[in-house]
Amino acid sequence: MKALVVVAHGSRRAASNDEVRELACELAGMLSDTFPIIEVGFLELAEPLIPAALERAIEAGATEISVFPYFLSAGRHVVTDVPEEVKIVQNKYPQLSINMLTHLGAASGFTRFIAETLKA
Amino acid sequence: MKALVVVAHGSRRAASNDEVRELACELAGMLSDTFPIIEVGFLELAEPLIPAALERAIEAGATEISVFPYFLSAGRHVVTDVPEEVKIVQNKYPQLSINMLTHLGAASGFTRFIAETLKA
Repeated sequence: MKALVVVAHGSRRAASNDEVRELACELAGMLSDTFPIIEVGFLELAEPLIPAALERAIEAGATEISVFPYFLSAGRHVVTDVPEEVKIVQNKYPQLSINMLTHLGAASGFTRFIAETLKA
Repeated sequence: MKALVVVAHGSRRAASNDEVRELACELAGMLSDTFPIIEVGFLELAEPLIPAALERAIEAGATEISVFPYFLSAGRHVVTDVPEEVKIVQNKYPQLSINMLTHLGAASGFTRFIAETLKA
């Protein structure tokens, strides 16, 4: 069973973390066919942390997890920190299929979407 | 004359800052009718900082500046830090029209865009 784990940085401001949780909730509604399981994980400052989020997906029956870095640019977090957290879980469950998706900022059509937004 | 200033956090990783500059460059091509002037400013860790970016826009002839917070969630940076940096310039040029646009993460259709990306 396929799972999506949306990974965000985490903020000291609770409302900001709730925004991410809300996004994941909306995505769950839109993507239920593709990803029957959707979880959110934070790199720091908010719960659940990334390993706990992946464990939640596994407990829900996930056998294939796609990790979506909800980050705008490929900074240290995307390049190093998130993959390291994911690796903790991969090492614990070697048979589990985990794949890292492209981070949001590198999504195809992203610039076009922003341009349309700014025009409106 | 209208200017757009894309404001990002800034990263220790130069490639990450270059991604933002590249985005602004692409936006300049797409939005030349709406915003003849487009600049990038960083909150920290990269140049130009936000006040310097606004000054650049003013030097280029801007009389009306739209500041676009290129941030995913309304954390402390969006709510407090960016507006404070903008205020420095507004105080220096009281006649200049500066308006803060909605941050990227709150853009209409944003979740739908992400869902389409994850489906593909």
